[in-house]
Amino acid sequence: MRKVILGMNVTLDGYVAGPNGEIDWAFRTMDPAQMERIIEYLRNDVDTILLGRVAYLQQAASWPTQTSEMATLLNGCDKVVFSKTLDTLEWNNSRLATGDAAEEIARLKQQPGKNITVTGGATLAQSLSRLGLIDEYNLTIHPVVLGNGMPLFKDLPAPLNLKLVSTRTFDTGAVAHIYQPA
Amino acid sequence: MRKVILGMNVTLDGYVAGPNGEIDWAFRTMDPAQMERIIEYLRNDVDTILLGRVAYLQQAASWPTQTSEMATLLNGCDKVVFSKTLDTLEWNNSRLATGDAAEEIARLKQQPGKNITVTGGATLAQSLSRLGLIDEYNLTIHPVVLGNGMPLFKDLPAPLNLKLVSTRTFDTGAVAHIYQPA
Repeated sequence: MRKVILGMNVTLDGYVAGPNGEIDWAFRTMDPAQMERIIEYLRNDVDTILLGRVAYLQQAASWPTQTSEMATLLNGCDKVVFSKTLDTLEWNNSRLATGDAAEEIARLKQQPGKNITVTGGATLAQSLSRLGLIDEYNLTIHPVVLGNGMPLFKDLPAPLNLKLVSTRTFDTGAVAHIYQPA
Repeated sequence: MRKVILGMNVTLDGYVAGPNGEIDWAFRTMDPAQMERIIEYLRNDVDTILLGRVAYLQQAASWPTQTSEMATLLNGCDKVVFSKTLDTLEWNNSRLATGDAAEEIARLKQQPGKNITVTGGATLAQSLSRLGLIDEYNLTIHPVVLGNGMPLFKDLPAPLNLKLVSTRTFDTGAVAHIYQPA
């Protein structure tokens, strides 16, 4: 069955963005090998992206007009956008999901296809973790501490025990960690 | 010069303890090899431990009556206890530091000796990081998410950029990461 994979950059203190959504901290230690790994992941492993409203609006304002390989891959993926306030979506291959996230994801997982990924949006990521809907966490921990910001995890009903699947250390000091629920 | 090394277990979301000081989450994935590494560290690399009030009271109630190698090593180390409310200390080789932490640590670093370590106490750890007094972070990230608790880092004046020195993965899925300020 298709897996739901959350793939994100995080700080050592567990934030995916600064207090105002800043992601500049990731640039200092973004390794070319990490970029290549992301492109391979989009090329081979996934065909569907889940997005919240904020992440959708950010990405839809940027990727459709770009022609890099990453842009081409992202533009080609199916995008499922969880929002109760957006009316129409301009980005190609995107559709609105206005109902229950658990039901939507259960339906997606029963369909054939590659894996499903969540690559941005603290609120959606928090919500899917809280509901136990993430099958795999692919977290690249960057060597930086923000002290506050938007946490990847928030208001869990209980501690989430994980098992480590693999790690990969990049030259910049960022370390990719793959975890699955224990 | 002696280094100040912060050596602690942390969750994947950056907590050193649960909301009420719980540290049971670390037991599931505490590896015998990690315990051995801690003992070697106490035996070879450090001779002085910095403690806050809460960590002192917890540890002073437990280690002095134990005879394990770890207890013997901890009992033998010099303990410097940062507290404005404690009057007397019962644990052997411990003394009160009531003044400025930065001055106390500067004085300690000018004295000969092995490295100086901080092994517990969220408040002291937060304070020393905030003041830029930590020379090395030795953080073992356990494969668990709490969702809330006592964070290792809090209220930093600015993002803290680090460089990765090394990693070591234990069989339990805990991963030790050594960082220094970049």
